[in-house]
Amino acid sequence: MNYPDDLAPGAPVRSGIPEHGRIPKYFTVKAQVAALIEELGGGGLLPTERDLAVRFEVSRETVRQALRELLLEGRLRRQGRGTVVAGPKLEQPLSLASYTEGVRRQGRTPGRNLISLDRFPCPPRLADETGLERGEPVWHMERVLLADDERMGVESTYVAVARVPRLDTDFDPDSSFYAYLRDRLGIEFGDADERIETVLATPREALLIGTPPALPMLLIHRISRDTAKRPLERVRTLYRGDRFSFSAHLGT
Amino acid sequence: MNYPDDLAPGAPVRSGIPEHGRIPKYFTVKAQVAALIEELGGGGLLPTERDLAVRFEVSRETVRQALRELLLEGRLRRQGRGTVVAGPKLEQPLSLASYTEGVRRQGRTPGRNLISLDRFPCPPRLADETGLERGEPVWHMERVLLADDERMGVESTYVAVARVPRLDTDFDPDSSFYAYLRDRLGIEFGDADERIETVLATPREALLIGTPPALPMLLIHRISRDTAKRPLERVRTLYRGDRFSFSAHLGT
Repeated sequence: MNYPDDLAPGAPVRSGIPEHGRIPKYFTVKAQVAALIEELGGGGLLPTERDLAVRFEVSRETVRQALRELLLEGRLRRQGRGTVVAGPKLEQPLSLASYTEGVRRQGRTPGRNLISLDRFPCPPRLADETGLERGEPVWHMERVLLADDERMGVESTYVAVARVPRLDTDFDPDSSFYAYLRDRLGIEFGDADERIETVLATPREALLIGTPPALPMLLIHRISRDTAKRPLERVRTLYRGDRFSFSAHLGT
Repeated sequence: MNYPDDLAPGAPVRSGIPEHGRIPKYFTVKAQVAALIEELGGGGLLPTERDLAVRFEVSRETVRQALRELLLEGRLRRQGRGTVVAGPKLEQPLSLASYTEGVRRQGRTPGRNLISLDRFPCPPRLADETGLERGEPVWHMERVLLADDERMGVESTYVAVARVPRLDTDFDPDSSFYAYLRDRLGIEFGDADERIETVLATPREALLIGTPPALPMLLIHRISRDTAKRPLERVRTLYRGDRFSFSAHLGT
C-alpha cells in the first residue's frame, strides 16, 4: 500500500493479505484508511476515530489499532487534536555528506539543539573501535537533530580533544560539525565505516525526540577517518524510523 | 546497553535514563535483564517470567513488557517453551554482493523457499521505476530467505522475461539468483540504487517469516542495472529487524 507497485499484479509482499489464516480486522481497516490517505494526500485531515469506526462499521478500538500502526510507520501524524496525512519520509544519502547537507538537499532547514558536551579519558572500547589512544581526552557531544524545527533524531559524537581543542568555546552547536572541521580546522573526511540497524526508542530518546516510546528508529553507527587515515570521530545517530529512509548508490 | 561503549562515561544515547521525568518500571527491569543477558551469553537460558518477577520484585506483566522489547530487538529469542539469549545480528554488506554471499561470509548456510513465481505485463509504475517497457512480460519471484533453516526475510524480485526466459524451468529457486545470472546467462551487475527503511511486518509477512506481527523490519528497495546500464531487476527485500544490520564502507 505504501509502495508504488503494490497494487500491481504479483506484488504481494507488502500487501498483507495472508494466503492462509484470516486477515486481522484491524488490518482490513488499516488498508481502508491507507486508501483514504492516498485520496487525501499530504497534509489532509483524517476523519475522527468515531467517524472512521462508523464508516467502516468496526469498534473504535479496532480503528485505534489501525491508526497506531499508520502513525508508527509515519504515514499519519498527530497535529494538535487531529490526525493528518504525513509527507514522504526524508531520504538521507548514506555518504560522507553531513546531516546538514542531506536535509538541505530536500529543501528543509536543518537545526541542532545541544543536549550535552563533556570530555573524559577515552575508554578502552572506544579506543579499540576508533584507534584513539586509551585514556586520551575525548569530547562527547550530544545533539538533537531538527528539520524545520521538527525533532528528527539524536546524534552522539565522540572526537579526540587533540583534534578539536576548542570545541567547547569555538564551535556553535547549532551548526554543521563537518563544516566546522573542514572550514575552520582544515580537516577533510577520508573514509568511514557505517552500520545501520533498527532499534526501539528508549524512554530517554523518546523524551528527547518527542516520539511515542518504543517507536522503531534507525540507528546509524559511523566510524570515520581523515584523508590520512587517522581516526576522526565515532558517531551514533538515531533517526525517527517514521520520518527517515536512507539511500545508497552501489557500484560504478 | 546493547552498544559497546554504552557503559563508558558520556555515552548516554542508548542508556535510556531520562534526565527529566521518571524511568518507567518496565525499563528498569529491561536494564536488569539486559545485564543478565550479558552474563548468560548467546544461547543462555533465561529464568522464567515468574522467577524474574520474584527476583526483581515486580509484577509478571512488567517482566513481560521488558521481555517483549528485548525479543523485538533480537536480544532474546523463544526456544521451545523457554527464552534464550540470541546471538549477534547478522551483518549484511550494502553491496552488489548477493544475500547468499553475505550469509556465507558469516559462516551461516543460506537457503530460500519459493513462495510464488508468476509472469505478467509490466505495470506503468514498475516500468517508470526500472526503465522496462510498459506491458513487456516480467517475472515476479517471491522467496523466503533462510540462514541455517531460520527464516530471515522475504525477497520479491521483478525481472524482464526477455532477460531470463527460462526462469520457471531452468532456475533452482533454492539457489542464488545472482550466481544464476552470472554463471548461466553471463549477466554481470553494473550498479544499483538502494533505499533502506524500517517498516512493520504485515500479517502476511509475519506469517511467511514466522515473526510476531508488527515486528520492526528492515525493508531494502533495490533497482539494479547491468554493466551496459540496461535495467536488470527491481528487488524488495524485507529482513527481520531483530536479526539483521547492514554495513557500508564510504569514501575511498
